[in-house]
Amino acid sequence: MNPTHIEHIGIAVANLDEAVKLYERCFGLKCYKVEEVTDQKVRTAFFMVGQTKIELLESTDPEGPIGKFITKRGEGVHHIAFAVNGIEEKLKFAEKEGMRLIDHVPRKGAEGLDIAFLHPASTGGVLIEICEKKNS
Amino acid sequence: MNPTHIEHIGIAVANLDEAVKLYERCFGLKCYKVEEVTDQKVRTAFFMVGQTKIELLESTDPEGPIGKFITKRGEGVHHIAFAVNGIEEKLKFAEKEGMRLIDHVPRKGAEGLDIAFLHPASTGGVLIEICEKKNS
Repeated sequence: MNPTHIEHIGIAVANLDEAVKLYERCFGLKCYKVEEVTDQKVRTAFFMVGQTKIELLESTDPEGPIGKFITKRGEGVHHIAFAVNGIEEKLKFAEKEGMRLIDHVPRKGAEGLDIAFLHPASTGGVLIEICEKKNS
Repeated sequence: MNPTHIEHIGIAVANLDEAVKLYERCFGLKCYKVEEVTDQKVRTAFFMVGQTKIELLESTDPEGPIGKFITKRGEGVHHIAFAVNGIEEKLKFAEKEGMRLIDHVPRKGAEGLDIAFLHPASTGGVLIEICEKKNS
């Protein structure tokens, strides 16, 4: 995989507006974008911390992935995203290594990234996303 | 707080040696240090990803914080650490903002950092550490 950096940390929150206020007031971070990803049934808010984004995720549907996560585990870290170069090849490598993939081909995520998730069963319990910004 | 970057992401693992092999083989990361923190009842392994460390944490005692975490929630992300400047002042600010602190004064953590934890009840369900490298 050879990730270049942690692209973002995805955090499931029950109420996006309140969580944005908390991160701005208590951590002095500035929300630079709120984006709805209808495909994933989430509303997201982004903050930059060094070279890594904090991505807060509020479910727009209790049956969506974040809705189910919060029902099961409560608010908290949902996933970590590694920035990679050549995401298609990295997915092929992961498959060859016997890792369980959630996405076998990349799809579009927030911020225009090509993204793919690896199953936590193959990564020591952590939901890991790999992602690539193709047009930068 | 105004963190400068994500210093590390702490991940609770059941078996450190196996997890190190997984991160090296599947993610192409290089473990640069294994360190035991007796105070926290953990053995830790570090990897660098851009400006952020991945810190794998294996409990050396089922009654330690990581042992209890794994019993309750299984393996996964345990905490996120923000690098700050002036950790003592940042703790005073957090207290003034009404945040619940786990550590009211900084203590020594892995890698010689001054560290302090904020309670997840005040941070939207995420265990957040703030930390500072004093002699760099």
